[in-house]
Amino acid sequence: MNKMSMKWLLLLQLLQLTCYFSSGNCGKVLVWPVEFSHWMNMKTILDELVMRGHEVTVLQSSASTLIDPNKPLAMKFETFPVSLTKDDFQTLAKILIETWMLAVKDFFWIHLSTIQSLFDEFSDIGMKICSEVVSNKKLMTKLQESRFDVVLADAVGPCGELLAEILKVPLVYSLYFSPGYLVEKRSARLSFPPSYVPVMLSELSDHMTFMERVKNMIYVLYFDYWFQLYDEKKWNQFYSEVVGRPTTMAELMGKAEMWLIRNYWDFSFPRPRLPNVEFVGGLHCKPAKPLPKVLWRYDGKKPDALGPNTWLFKWIPQNDLLGHPKTKAFITHGGSNGIYEAIYHGIPMVGLPLFADQPHNIVHMTAKGAAIRLDLETMSTEDLLNALKEVINNPFYKENIMRLSAIQHDQPMKPLDRAIFWIEFVMRHKGAKHLRPASHNLTWFQYHSLDVIGFLLACVTTVVFVITKCCLFCCRKFASIGKKRKRD
Amino acid sequence: MNKMSMKWLLLLQLLQLTCYFSSGNCGKVLVWPVEFSHWMNMKTILDELVMRGHEVTVLQSSASTLIDPNKPLAMKFETFPVSLTKDDFQTLAKILIETWMLAVKDFFWIHLSTIQSLFDEFSDIGMKICSEVVSNKKLMTKLQESRFDVVLADAVGPCGELLAEILKVPLVYSLYFSPGYLVEKRSARLSFPPSYVPVMLSELSDHMTFMERVKNMIYVLYFDYWFQLYDEKKWNQFYSEVVGRPTTMAELMGKAEMWLIRNYWDFSFPRPRLPNVEFVGGLHCKPAKPLPKVLWRYDGKKPDALGPNTWLFKWIPQNDLLGHPKTKAFITHGGSNGIYEAIYHGIPMVGLPLFADQPHNIVHMTAKGAAIRLDLETMSTEDLLNALKEVINNPFYKENIMRLSAIQHDQPMKPLDRAIFWIEFVMRHKGAKHLRPASHNLTWFQYHSLDVIGFLLACVTTVVFVITKCCLFCCRKFASIGKKRKRD
Repeated sequence: MNKMSMKWLLLLQLLQLTCYFSSGNCGKVLVWPVEFSHWMNMKTILDELVMRGHEVTVLQSSASTLIDPNKPLAMKFETFPVSLTKDDFQTLAKILIETWMLAVKDFFWIHLSTIQSLFDEFSDIGMKICSEVVSNKKLMTKLQESRFDVVLADAVGPCGELLAEILKVPLVYSLYFSPGYLVEKRSARLSFPPSYVPVMLSELSDHMTFMERVKNMIYVLYFDYWFQLYDEKKWNQFYSEVVGRPTTMAELMGKAEMWLIRNYWDFSFPRPRLPNVEFVGGLHCKPAKPLPKVLWRYDGKKPDALGPNTWLFKWIPQNDLLGHPKTKAFITHGGSNGIYEAIYHGIPMVGLPLFADQPHNIVHMTAKGAAIRLDLETMSTEDLLNALKEVINNPFYKENIMRLSAIQHDQPMKPLDRAIFWIEFVMRHKGAKHLRPASHNLTWFQYHSLDVIGFLLACVTTVVFVITKCCLFCCRKFASIGKKRKRD
Repeated sequence: MNKMSMKWLLLLQLLQLTCYFSSGNCGKVLVWPVEFSHWMNMKTILDELVMRGHEVTVLQSSASTLIDPNKPLAMKFETFPVSLTKDDFQTLAKILIETWMLAVKDFFWIHLSTIQSLFDEFSDIGMKICSEVVSNKKLMTKLQESRFDVVLADAVGPCGELLAEILKVPLVYSLYFSPGYLVEKRSARLSFPPSYVPVMLSELSDHMTFMERVKNMIYVLYFDYWFQLYDEKKWNQFYSEVVGRPTTMAELMGKAEMWLIRNYWDFSFPRPRLPNVEFVGGLHCKPAKPLPKVLWRYDGKKPDALGPNTWLFKWIPQNDLLGHPKTKAFITHGGSNGIYEAIYHGIPMVGLPLFADQPHNIVHMTAKGAAIRLDLETMSTEDLLNALKEVINNPFYKENIMRLSAIQHDQPMKPLDRAIFWIEFVMRHKGAKHLRPASHNLTWFQYHSLDVIGFLLACVTTVVFVITKCCLFCCRKFASIGKKRKRD
C-alpha cells in the first residue's frame, strides 16, 4: 500500500473515531452484497456511509470477486470459507451470461424457461453459500457480538434477510428489479397494474395498445403463477429450519424496513409506490474527472493495425468518459448503471442489448426518445454508422436525453443522499415501522378482499333467495286460495 | 399601516425585484384558495413563495373572508364581484357546520345523506362563483395578460382546474382529503385498497377485523357508486360549455401536474402513492414564539366567576401555545392543522371531534396511542378530567406522541421545502410530465384491465368449446363406426 493510501485510510479511521465520540449518530452496517455490476452500485452507498463515519462490514465468501486489490477500501471485509472456488464462481457466472445471451434470441417462452433453469441452478448455489454462512458458528458468534445497527442487502441475492432475522437487526434492501417484479410484489407489496405497468423483461412501454395490454397480462399471469425466482419450497424449508419456526422467504424479505430501488422517473415509467419504497436511481453518478486525450478499452493483444493516436487501457472510467465535453454518443449494451451515467451527462445512446434487463432498459430509452436500438446479431456496419449519425445529428435525441438529464439533476435531494438518509434513519430509530403498510399482515386472499367480496356476494344471494322464496310462497298461497274459492 | 409593516413590504418587494433581475428563477403564481382552515394552510405556502421572491396573486370573491385587515400581506389579492355578500357566505358556512355537527350524531347512512345534500348546496354556490369568474371578461383578460407560470388551487374547491385550462397554465393542487377519497381516486388515480386503507369518514384504522373490512368495503362501494361530491352532470356540462369541447371535471382535475397532500406517515396510515403525489403534512408547523404567562381564548362577555390569574384573548396563536415548555396536553376538536401542531410539538391529546374529518382524524391519533377520544355530548366533567390526567400522567401517550414528533422532524427534507420545490419545479419545467402515470390515458374499464380479462376469458371459452366439440364429434364418429361394425 502506498503512502497516499495509508494517509487516506488513517483519515477515514479518524472520521469514524470522531463520529463515535461526538454525535454518537454513527452506526455499524453489515452488508450482504451481490457480485458484478450490483456491487459497483452498492459500493457507492458504502463509500458514502464510510465517509460519514459509519463502520461498514461486508460479508463475502472466499469465492467472491469483490475486492479490487489495487484500491484501498476503508470498509472491512469479513471473508468466510465456502466449498466453491473463485474460478468455479467465475465459470458459473460466465455460463449464466452466455446461456442467457443465447436464450434472448429464442421465442419468448423458451427464453423464459431457460431463465427459469438458470435461476434454479443459481438458487442451489445461493443456498449452499447461505447455509455455509449460517452454519459457521465462529462467524455467526462474531457477527452477533458486533451488534450491528442495520443489515444492508441486495434483494436479488438471498440470505441477507435470514442474517437480519438471526442477528435481530433491521434490514434495508437495495434493488434494481426482479424478473416479473415478483420480489417487489410479494415482499414489498408494491402493486403493478397490468394496464399501464409493463412487466420487466416484456419490452413493452407504459403506453400500450389493446393487444400489448393482452400480451402484458399474459406475462403477468405467467410470472405470478408459473415462474419461480428461487425454488421457494426448498428455501422456505431451509429458512424455517434455521429460524426454528415455520416461515417463508417472502415473509422474512417482507420484514425489510426500507427498499431502495435503483430507478427514478427519468428512466422508469411512473407507477405506484409505497411509503417504505424510495427510488434512488442514478445514485452512483457523479461529475466527470479529466481524461487522457485518446483511449480505448481493450484487454487482449494490441492489434497491429492500431493507429498511433489510440491508447489501449484495460479499464477506463465510463462515467468520466461520458462526462467528457467532446462525448457525443454512447454505444451501450444497456446495463442500468451505464444508462444512468448517460442520462446524468446527457449523452444520447445507441443500444445493443445482450441479455437480462438490457433489452427492457433500452426499450425505456427508445420510448423516451433518447436512444436507437440495434440488434448486435443482425446489424451491419452501416446500420451502426447510421444510428450513430442519427443520435448525434438529429436534435430530437439530444433534446430528449437533456430533458431526462434535467429530471435527474433537478430533484428535491440527491438520490445518494436520500439512500443514506433512510439507512441512517433505520439505524437511528431501529426501523421505520411508520412507513410499513398494513398489507403485510394480510394473506393475498385478504389483501385482494376476496373473502369480503365472497361474504357480501353470499349475503346478497341469501337475501335474493329468501325474498324469491317468500314471493313464491305468497304466490302459491294466493293461487291455492283462489283455487279453493273457485272450487267452493 | 404602521412603520414596521411598511418596511416589511418594501423588503419583500426588493426581494422580488432582486429575484427577477438575478437568477430569473422567480415565477408568477395564481392562487385559487378555499376559505377557513384550508386558507390558513395555503397561506403558509404562499408566504414562503413570496419570501423566495415569487409574485403571488390570490383570486378571491367579494364575499371572501380571507384578508385579515390587521396584517400586511405581501401577496396581491385580485378581488372579483359576486352576487353573494360576505354575510351570506358566513351564514351559509355556519349552517353547513351546524348541520354537519348534528348529522354526525345520526346513524351513518343518514349522516352521509345529510352530507350529500350539504355538498349539493355548496356545489351550486361554487358553480355560481365559478361562472361569475370565468364570465368576467375584464378579469379574465387581465389574468391572461399576466402570463402566470402556475395555478395553485385547493382541490376541494372547484374552478381552479378550469382557470388553469383557460389560461393554459400548469396546475398544482393542495389537498387534505375528499370524502370517500373520490377526488384522489378519479383525478389523481391513486389507489386505496379496501383491505387496509380505511375510507375517510369511516372511523376505521388500517388494522381491521374481518367485519371491519366488510364495513369498509360497503363504504367504498357507497362512495364509489352512490355519493356525489359535486353534481357532476351539471359541472361537466358547465366545464364543457366554457372550454368549448366535451370534457369533465375529473378530466380537467386529472391534468394537475402535482398533488401536495397535507398528510404524512406520522398522522396517516401508510398507503399507496404515486410519483406526482407528495405528502407534505405539517408544513405549517414551526417552532413556538414566547407567550404571556396565563391566557384564555374567549370572544364573549367576561364571566363573573373568572379568577384574576386568567387572561382572556380574542385569538391566541395555537402553535406557540402548543410549543410552550409547560404545555402538557391538548384538548382538541380534531382539525388536521391543530393535530399536526400537537404532533410537531409532541403534546398528547384529548379529542372531542365535532364534524367533517375530525372524528376520523382522532381515530388516527387514538390508533397511534397519542390521544384519548371523548364524546362532547355525553361526557361528564369527570370524564374530561380523567382523560386529561391519563394523557398527562400515563407515559404511554407522551412516548407515542414523541415518536410521531420524531417522525415529523426526521424527514429527508422539511415538508414546506418539498412543497415549494415541486411548485418551483413545475414553474421551471412548465409541468412535471415525467411523474404522470399513463393510467390517466385509460378509461376505468381499461385501467382495471376488464377488457383484457374479458378478451382472454372469451379466448379460453372458445378454445374449450372448440376442443369439446371436436372431442364430441370424434366420439360420435367412433360410436357410429362401432355401431356400423356391430350391424355388419
